[in-house]
Amino acid sequence: MRTAAGNAELALLLEVAGTPKPGNVDRHRDLDDLRFEHFLAGAVGARDGLEMAAEGAAVGPAFERAVEGMAAQGGGNTQFGALLLLVPLVRAAREDLSQPVAESVVERTTVADAAAFYRAFDHVDVFVSEPPADLEPLDVRRGSDAVPALEQRGLTLLDVMDRSVPGDDVAREWLTGFERSFAAAERIAAADGPVADRAAATFLSLLAERPDTLVAKRSGEGVAREVTERAAELRESAADRERVEAFADDLVARGINPGTTADLTAAGLFIALEREAVDV
Amino acid sequence: MRTAAGNAELALLLEVAGTPKPGNVDRHRDLDDLRFEHFLAGAVGARDGLEMAAEGAAVGPAFERAVEGMAAQGGGNTQFGALLLLVPLVRAAREDLSQPVAESVVERTTVADAAAFYRAFDHVDVFVSEPPADLEPLDVRRGSDAVPALEQRGLTLLDVMDRSVPGDDVAREWLTGFERSFAAAERIAAADGPVADRAAATFLSLLAERPDTLVAKRSGEGVAREVTERAAELRESAADRERVEAFADDLVARGINPGTTADLTAAGLFIALEREAVDV
Repeated sequence: MRTAAGNAELALLLEVAGTPKPGNVDRHRDLDDLRFEHFLAGAVGARDGLEMAAEGAAVGPAFERAVEGMAAQGGGNTQFGALLLLVPLVRAAREDLSQPVAESVVERTTVADAAAFYRAFDHVDVFVSEPPADLEPLDVRRGSDAVPALEQRGLTLLDVMDRSVPGDDVAREWLTGFERSFAAAERIAAADGPVADRAAATFLSLLAERPDTLVAKRSGEGVAREVTERAAELRESAADRERVEAFADDLVARGINPGTTADLTAAGLFIALEREAVDV
Repeated sequence: MRTAAGNAELALLLEVAGTPKPGNVDRHRDLDDLRFEHFLAGAVGARDGLEMAAEGAAVGPAFERAVEGMAAQGGGNTQFGALLLLVPLVRAAREDLSQPVAESVVERTTVADAAAFYRAFDHVDVFVSEPPADLEPLDVRRGSDAVPALEQRGLTLLDVMDRSVPGDDVAREWLTGFERSFAAAERIAAADGPVADRAAATFLSLLAERPDTLVAKRSGEGVAREVTERAAELRESAADRERVEAFADDLVARGINPGTTADLTAAGLFIALEREAVDV
């Protein structure tokens, strides 16, 4: 019987193992400076922060600890967004891993949680958009330097997430009761075969539904929409694995990495594992 | 900075990620009932027992806990032998990860450690040879039922390992100050490229040196010798990856899995990570 922290770590590992996962590192695809092994080390490093959440620590400090451990590998940011979903979900699992409980966990976050979230950016480079001028003091890239501004405005971590929507579909989960994470879990449970294969199929289905917000930030909304349309075509035509592999190769060659969709997949894997809806 | 327990878990993950690793599951090869994801779950499950060893618990109970957690997945025995190497090495790392300290850790094992080792067999099916008739009461397949006989004879865990040599090259490490584990660490450190690739190359070099004892037990010594001779040829001719892949496919097709060599590779990875001789 795995603990919630163990299931969360395993979710990170199964997510990156699932292949083909178009555009992302998976067990058949390394990028130049970001390799499969960096994700293995990132998952192992995140464990202590995940344990903190499982033991009832506040979301912010547990997240900061998880990110600090995740970042102790040479690939940079491997699983920041996934941890931003997993930490509140692990915290919810202490009580009941349901949408209402997950919602109440994020509603209870405080200014101190927001401060810890900002400090997490001191540990790792995360790709984010330029903030509007009036939000410059709250630019997450300022890391802990932004904490005074945050405290002055009295923003909780949920408030911070609220300000990132639309445009960041990880933050959106915080505002919607982790809607797509729970939907992903159901698809993973309903699919057949090895769990890593189910994760890859679920990734494609999520990508087909909504443009990936990391792709939109990095490559523009037009590219993000194009990627989603191609994913939807592959889904609708029940494309064979070869066509999905070709799509994956094309995205990797163009440097398009749907990271937000991978984060949602990891969250769905955790929910499915924790509810024992899948067995590994 | 990863903890010793984190490095040991990461060693298990990097070992199974390394490809091609002829005859074994790796990130490009699943067997029918034993898949890559079972090894991921096995590594995650072993973490608590590895933490026990890192915190100074006795070797036997830490090993039993690690095996119990490792076995909580559907693939069966994924990493029993690797844990039998990693647990005393993690325990040694509290003091100094050197051959003399590792030797003193195993010399200090007790009858209670031996009893916990036998109890570990209650959690998982491990492939072992038939014991000679006079050792039948100590057959490890009896699991905890063998504990009274063990206590009556006053055997420590090191004594039990001593009785498994020759014929079991994991046990042999306990008697030789973990000679090949430390040699593997040096090869991993001296190699180039991603750590998982170094692990695969080191696996082949270990296989080329001595017949794998798990292969010998399962398929006979003739087969084990043949596998080692073919590995040595590939090493001597600096064979390209394609030939090593063909060798890997052939062994998988014949159901020949050099598991002991994989165990030694995992131990070498842990030593190299813990000494910071490699970076992930």
